[in-house]
Amino acid sequence: MPPKAFRSRHLVRFSHCDPAGVVFYPRFFDLFSSTLEDWFQGGIDCPFGGEFMDRRNLRVPGLSITAEFLRPCSLGEFLDLDLWVTRLGHSSFELALAGSVAGEPRLRAAWKLCVIDFATFKATPIPDDLRSRMEAFQPSRA
Amino acid sequence: MPPKAFRSRHLVRFSHCDPAGVVFYPRFFDLFSSTLEDWFQGGIDCPFGGEFMDRRNLRVPGLSITAEFLRPCSLGEFLDLDLWVTRLGHSSFELALAGSVAGEPRLRAAWKLCVIDFATFKATPIPDDLRSRMEAFQPSRA
Amino acid sequence: MPPKAFRSRHLVRFSHCDPAGVVFYPRFFDLFSSTLEDWFQGGIDCPFGGEFMDRRNLRVPGLSITAEFLRPCSLGEFLDLDLWVTRLGHSSFELALAGSVAGEPRLRAAWKLCVIDFATFKATPIPDDLRSRMEAFQPSRA
Amino acid sequence: MPPKAFRSRHLVRFSHCDPAGVVFYPRFFDLFSSTLEDWFQGGIDCPFGGEFMDRRNLRVPGLSITAEFLRPCSLGEFLDLDLWVTRLGHSSFELALAGSVAGEPRLRAAWKLCVIDFATFKATPIPDDLRSRMEAFQPSRA
Repeated sequence: MPPKAFRSRHLVRFSHCDPAGVVFYPRFFDLFSSTLEDWFQGGIDCPFGGEFMDRRNLRVPGLSITAEFLRPCSLGEFLDLDLWVTRLGHSSFELALAGSVAGEPRLRAAWKLCVIDFATFKATPIPDDLRSRMEAFQPSRA
Repeated sequence: MPPKAFRSRHLVRFSHCDPAGVVFYPRFFDLFSSTLEDWFQGGIDCPFGGEFMDRRNLRVPGLSITAEFLRPCSLGEFLDLDLWVTRLGHSSFELALAGSVAGEPRLRAAWKLCVIDFATFKATPIPDDLRSRMEAFQPSRA
Repeated sequence: MPPKAFRSRHLVRFSHCDPAGVVFYPRFFDLFSSTLEDWFQGGIDCPFGGEFMDRRNLRVPGLSITAEFLRPCSLGEFLDLDLWVTRLGHSSFELALAGSVAGEPRLRAAWKLCVIDFATFKATPIPDDLRSRMEAFQPSRA
Repeated sequence: MPPKAFRSRHLVRFSHCDPAGVVFYPRFFDLFSSTLEDWFQGGIDCPFGGEFMDRRNLRVPGLSITAEFLRPCSLGEFLDLDLWVTRLGHSSFELALAGSVAGEPRLRAAWKLCVIDFATFKATPIPDDLRSRMEAFQPSRA
């Protein structure tokens, strides 16, 4: 587990699995989304629904994502997804994700997102309070 | 919570929600499936993937389901799904599900399932050890 | 195919299938939703997104649904979903759905929905123009 | 549309859309999977379920994928996904995908996949007949 990473654990469900008996790869992106929500709630103290979306009227669409699938994941396994910050821009930021089962690497991803004002659908600066809390998950900062 | 029910708690995720901002109703059926898995694991001590599917080579397809949606569920809410047994047949069994958030009813369902042998895709008796453990979740039995 | 039914054809995709190699039952409810959209567009001439949701600001949540699964559906099959109206109330209406592959029955469902005004989230009468077009799909009417 | 690309058209459904009213990004990966199936069926004449999976007992897991999201997609839009081959290796191959609505670019992706024998879960050479048909979708070849 990388230093300063936020960990979210996910049980591999029957509903995630495909006819090969392993996680159908689009479901990993659902789990990335869940991990982002868990990080907002438990990592940067800004619940995704009530605080971020409803009260601040912000959204955080992905601009790009790259994922590598190292080994498949099977029903009943617990997938740990570790998330950390690799770049904090003005409106955009980049996250790394590493997925493992009992310490064995299964996948990794790099995800670029952008904060937008839902009223205008345009990019808006990352709020200062969130930015400072996001910095705690940025390993490269001393 | 009904007597003898098994409770499984589910966080309502962004991925469950539709353009109306509430859970898209097909996602509830995914959550019913998750609750069934949790019950197999934590209620009748037969992990769904390894023990039930792999070692015993059994599956448990639904024959029918009825669901009533009383009130919508929103992002960030914790949906408690209570499951209990309403009938135990030879190969088939019936479950009731009641969904609530902080005690407020949101939905209920009646689900009829059947144990099949995956080698033949045909109905097979509910194994005796599982049957006796399922009885513990049947309120009508004294 | 029942008289006056609206037919929507769906290819069974890899993404619909579970580790048993057949459609995972919650995915049928996604297909019911798609069939409803196709009926709004092609049956009652009210495109679901632009006209019904955006311009009229209406939504049509399900109140209850019952489904029976007669035979499984496999990857690559074309599932025909026939939809017709079984009751037209003030705000609510009921639909029947019958699913078949090459004429062989696979599943059926009964679905009760309700028109709501999205501004208030409260029931609102079925608009007159939609009601009259819905009647064309009601077999019991002469 | 790039030369030699295979086009698959997808209607944006209510079930694809999130609380922002646009396609939830993991659903694009489901659509990529559907496009791959359509290409197997209509482009390289090897139906994905019956021929590729059942008779040849092959699977084609993704090794990595990169996607860029240029503009959101909304309910009721028709998303054209153009697919072509950028590299043909021994067991692995790379695809490009470009998504557009009425000619306007919305997203693009680069996808690396690998043919495996489902009996061993190990990489196996791309079958010769498929390889030669795949070459027809490789723009860089004269």
